[in-house]
Amino acid sequence: MNSLTSLFAPRSIAVVGASQDTNKIRGRLLKLLVGGGYAGPVYPVNPSSDVIQGMKAYPSVEALPEPVDLALIAVAAAQVMEVLEQCARRGVKSAAIFSAGPHAPVGERLQDEVEAFAARTGMRVLGPNAEGYLDAEGGLVATFSPTLEVVSPLPPGALPRRERVSIVSQSGAMAYALYSRARAQHIPVRHLVSTGNEADVELLEVVDYLIGQGTSRAILMFVEGLKHPGRLAAVAAKAADAGVALIVAKIGRSGAGQRAAVSHTAHLTGADTAYDAAFRRHGVIRVDKPEQMLALAAAVSAGAVPRGPRVGIITTSGGAGGWAADICEQAGLEVPELVPAFKEQLAAIVPDYGSAENPVDVTARVVEDGGSTLMNILDLVARADGIDIGLIIVSLVLPDRIRSIEERLATIMAASPRPIVFHSPGQPAPEGLDILAEVGGVHLGLEDFAQAMKRLCDHQAFLRRWRASRLDTSRPPAPRLALAGRAAGPLDQVEARRLLAAYAVPMPSETLAGSAGEAVRAARAMGGPVALKIVSPDVPHKTEAGGVVLGVAGDEAVAQAHERVLANVRRHAPHARIEGVQVQKMMPAGREMVVGVVDDPDFGPMVMLGFGGVYVEVLRDVAFALAPVDLDGARAMIDGLKGVDILRGARGQAASDVEALARLLVSVSELAAAHAGRIAEIDLNPVMVFPQGQGVCAVDTLVVMADPASASRSEESVQLAEAK
Amino acid sequence: MNSLTSLFAPRSIAVVGASQDTNKIRGRLLKLLVGGGYAGPVYPVNPSSDVIQGMKAYPSVEALPEPVDLALIAVAAAQVMEVLEQCARRGVKSAAIFSAGPHAPVGERLQDEVEAFAARTGMRVLGPNAEGYLDAEGGLVATFSPTLEVVSPLPPGALPRRERVSIVSQSGAMAYALYSRARAQHIPVRHLVSTGNEADVELLEVVDYLIGQGTSRAILMFVEGLKHPGRLAAVAAKAADAGVALIVAKIGRSGAGQRAAVSHTAHLTGADTAYDAAFRRHGVIRVDKPEQMLALAAAVSAGAVPRGPRVGIITTSGGAGGWAADICEQAGLEVPELVPAFKEQLAAIVPDYGSAENPVDVTARVVEDGGSTLMNILDLVARADGIDIGLIIVSLVLPDRIRSIEERLATIMAASPRPIVFHSPGQPAPEGLDILAEVGGVHLGLEDFAQAMKRLCDHQAFLRRWRASRLDTSRPPAPRLALAGRAAGPLDQVEARRLLAAYAVPMPSETLAGSAGEAVRAARAMGGPVALKIVSPDVPHKTEAGGVVLGVAGDEAVAQAHERVLANVRRHAPHARIEGVQVQKMMPAGREMVVGVVDDPDFGPMVMLGFGGVYVEVLRDVAFALAPVDLDGARAMIDGLKGVDILRGARGQAASDVEALARLLVSVSELAAAHAGRIAEIDLNPVMVFPQGQGVCAVDTLVVMADPASASRSEESVQLAEAK
Repeated sequence: MNSLTSLFAPRSIAVVGASQDTNKIRGRLLKLLVGGGYAGPVYPVNPSSDVIQGMKAYPSVEALPEPVDLALIAVAAAQVMEVLEQCARRGVKSAAIFSAGPHAPVGERLQDEVEAFAARTGMRVLGPNAEGYLDAEGGLVATFSPTLEVVSPLPPGALPRRERVSIVSQSGAMAYALYSRARAQHIPVRHLVSTGNEADVELLEVVDYLIGQGTSRAILMFVEGLKHPGRLAAVAAKAADAGVALIVAKIGRSGAGQRAAVSHTAHLTGADTAYDAAFRRHGVIRVDKPEQMLALAAAVSAGAVPRGPRVGIITTSGGAGGWAADICEQAGLEVPELVPAFKEQLAAIVPDYGSAENPVDVTARVVEDGGSTLMNILDLVARADGIDIGLIIVSLVLPDRIRSIEERLATIMAASPRPIVFHSPGQPAPEGLDILAEVGGVHLGLEDFAQAMKRLCDHQAFLRRWRASRLDTSRPPAPRLALAGRAAGPLDQVEARRLLAAYAVPMPSETLAGSAGEAVRAARAMGGPVALKIVSPDVPHKTEAGGVVLGVAGDEAVAQAHERVLANVRRHAPHARIEGVQVQKMMPAGREMVVGVVDDPDFGPMVMLGFGGVYVEVLRDVAFALAPVDLDGARAMIDGLKGVDILRGARGQAASDVEALARLLVSVSELAAAHAGRIAEIDLNPVMVFPQGQGVCAVDTLVVMADPASASRSEESVQLAEAK
Repeated sequence: MNSLTSLFAPRSIAVVGASQDTNKIRGRLLKLLVGGGYAGPVYPVNPSSDVIQGMKAYPSVEALPEPVDLALIAVAAAQVMEVLEQCARRGVKSAAIFSAGPHAPVGERLQDEVEAFAARTGMRVLGPNAEGYLDAEGGLVATFSPTLEVVSPLPPGALPRRERVSIVSQSGAMAYALYSRARAQHIPVRHLVSTGNEADVELLEVVDYLIGQGTSRAILMFVEGLKHPGRLAAVAAKAADAGVALIVAKIGRSGAGQRAAVSHTAHLTGADTAYDAAFRRHGVIRVDKPEQMLALAAAVSAGAVPRGPRVGIITTSGGAGGWAADICEQAGLEVPELVPAFKEQLAAIVPDYGSAENPVDVTARVVEDGGSTLMNILDLVARADGIDIGLIIVSLVLPDRIRSIEERLATIMAASPRPIVFHSPGQPAPEGLDILAEVGGVHLGLEDFAQAMKRLCDHQAFLRRWRASRLDTSRPPAPRLALAGRAAGPLDQVEARRLLAAYAVPMPSETLAGSAGEAVRAARAMGGPVALKIVSPDVPHKTEAGGVVLGVAGDEAVAQAHERVLANVRRHAPHARIEGVQVQKMMPAGREMVVGVVDDPDFGPMVMLGFGGVYVEVLRDVAFALAPVDLDGARAMIDGLKGVDILRGARGQAASDVEALARLLVSVSELAAAHAGRIAEIDLNPVMVFPQGQGVCAVDTLVVMADPASASRSEESVQLAEAK
């Protein structure tokens, strides 16, 4: 694949289909491009006039005076292919197609034709059905979006001194919606790209390119369904290396949402569980609502990224402080007791009808002196031990107040080693918000604050783990056991046990004894009490036949039991063929869990953990992770279960061997990763988890081989990284 | 108690402590009162000047020319009592105290003194530490809040033609914060009352008064803790009768006010659970975040109150539609398939690259004709079958577009029998929002929309049930069994069984048989198989002694088993004293549940339902309701369990006798209500729930009597209703 530079940083541009009428898409496109301050040559192409919007126009692409880097194509869908072919002939490097949708036969054919064209010619093509893109600092506005008429990008060089944020969206409308809201929240948007139907250039490739440009601290992604999910790992790794936060909205959680995505841009939404696991694995921050996405962007752009979850709340209203504390704790943040030194410093300032406990009610009186007391308090918040985030709840209804403290606030914000975030309970005055933004502050709603801080805090923890381990998932481990040639469908028990044993999955020890002596030796080897069970194709009901004895310990008892089992069965069924007596280690009481593997078509094998029994099936208390997982990942899966305290030993119950369960998950996930695409399903149900130190045991096992014809999409996996 | 009319609709007002300096609280109070357009006489009181803010001032309350209805008191805390006494002597009817806080010794003493003063004189007193109140239509602004300088109330008569909303808050800052945000969202605020420290007048009494005035469709309540929780039932009933939505924010979810508790059930509850149960029971809508409260107010004020949960989403952006669908379903709303007739009508309008499936992607093209196509679609949405709410996702970034359709939109909105709510994915232009509000529309964020519609829909269902049943909880049922004189602590088994039996709680049938004949008669009466167990103080291990026989059916078998049990025990322990043989009905296999009662200090007895076993504690899958509950309420408790599908028969399991469980809950709750304040705790654990039609059985029972000294606050209960 050619690079995207010609598309996103072109040295020259042709606008094919450009019109004089700026109310039309074809006219607005040219107008916005020129008005946006693009510095290179722009060539309108339209056979019907010589001059368009005051510029010399060319009758065709072939008539262009130079082979431009980029053609913006806004002609009727039926003419797109012809224009593209002309572009290829004229040496044009890339194109963005604004025309057409996926549903009409023309649109569908166009999609396929563009895909084939790009593959054949090497030209890079954005769209069709894209709403274009922009680069605020590059001065490139390649879109017809009417939003740009209201919210023009800041001119190059005029972006505020904040971290830049970029937007990449499969939906054009959402791209510009997020853009207009981001701008209203003082978030400097650097790049915006609408990828539309993605016949060639797709979202992850754009994100990869933007990370490479090093121009954004966060990238907001609006996703209906990834065209190449297998690329996510490599792109996210690059983001993690660069410290870029990937913030994604992925629709399709609900049935109706899936309907919308398919009909909209023909993207298949995939399994939401798999996307969720993939985002979690790769440190991609997923949001549920537009407001969360913007709150995260606002926090990142203000540099308000916390190291930990401890919030110190400073409020001029006790009521608002209580509400904030509830919302923070609900979101998983902490509102801890303050360290004594900080509390004493506060107590010296706070009026006696306030409170120096967290949330700290400094009372409205502290702002009555024009704000200098409040500034003293902020100074303490910036320097105090024991908190990671300062939340300042103070009214911005009256802009005068913040204006009077602007300078001192700027100094404190610049020096603070931790995020200091503001919330005004009353409707903040726009001017107040402007001033706050200028001094490097950020204002958030309470819920948005809590959700954004929690996610950023988790993301920071992910980055620390990432830097420590750099877990490389690009190369699947080698299989420890060849499974080639196995037919689709369940493996037989012997094969399944052999495969699981190769990955050190603990299963019940069992030996077929042909004599009392063999039974005794087997029992000795196992240690502890054993069960003896007759093995005979002619005795279906072993217990009724007296063919089962449980809990036998000691050589003599085992030998006697062996003889008793044989005698019982011979009496019960004199003509039965007897293959021997199976000796099984008796298992202590344990907690029943389920461990499984499913093969997701987008992301490959996922390992699953849940509680056994109907209760948890109903509550869906299960955790998923992409295979393979390491021990930390396995522990995180266990901790992700709602009922984890049952394993950890709640309410006087014995704690279970959680570490052994984690090791089992690692083993099973490595097995699954090593045989990706060949194993359709693994089901270990139940897995007994014994008390601490006593291990686990997969009592019943099922391994189902995949149909080789239905290989998962994930096998394309790291093409992107390798292609570069 | 005297009525609140003199406080909230005074015919004359004195401002005690009024100052010339309008930057001070004491000056601003007078300025805002006069500027607010109050029509009656206003008398500044201050000994240090004759004229204040251009008005004749009086040296003292006693020097006033008439006994005013209301004194606004803004003097130093130490002088408040003296001013109040003067007011009482001069015949002033009510007062609002703006001075002082609760923490300083002065503040605390003041609180007690004001309480005693109000009780003694009958004068009604708001505060201390109140931030006053306002009545927009009454032209009464009795507050010093600086917010009023920025957001003055609309003059009387100028409130927009929307439903009015009122705000009652214990926190002054939150009251005015909500007020300023409400005004920014076009919500007409009628009354605002900050109740402060509530020495006399408290929040529920104010709410009760406002409901009586009939001036608000919704009342927003910000609550830290109710002074008289027992009044909630009567006030909420009055609201339900009047169709007024009570929308409450109650802080303290995160741990404050949690009680230490010994018993299993009590441990899971805590004050917040009780408030939650009380709000649910009485149809009070609880919100978690400020944005939700305002979204509810905005919806109610626009008349956007849905009858049901089915949302039809019409969107110009497929991406936003998918996101909206996910958010709606997540919130518990439905995004159903559209009825064929509606779909056909839409298909005739929607471009072929859009979609007539819900969410309906009408594409951006439909707004390109100036909006007339969009209006045709809205017309269909207003009239279509199969949906309860129309959500219109359309950009309001450009205000021109909505301006051009203003008139037609107003007509459609006025005629629509169902809510039509708007959401702009991009930042809406303020002018666009103004126009939308003028035509009776409302704009909401997607999450706010979903949460508000779900809660209003549930509230409508509550009102329908309310009107159908008018469940009267004001008079507790008479006890069926007198428990007077029982000491605090557990009842013995015989008494506990007698009490539970009086409320028809099914327990294992058991009879002490003195002879084989008695055993046979007992078994016959029970029907089905029985167990026989020796009863002897000298045989602690019945089974080892051969003293237990299970699953005996038929006269002869029962008689034989009776003799066998006696013979076995006599052989095993020849000298044992034998009291008889207990005959117990054998129970089928069932699901183990826990049913309990705890006595909440605020709201009295609450009944609890949860699953048995370790899950109930770890996963906290429990439901609470105030006692008594009726059958519908009991069914709602069962349906409120996350694991309800286990009882309903999930995954091929047999369905349990949910109706019998509901009847048990009703019985236990009636028992608890009848003995409110006397029973501290009931614990039925386990309660076996048998397969459908086979009933339930409380296997183990514990009833703990309360210490009479610690009667719960709920016993003051309906004072308010009776006092009027």
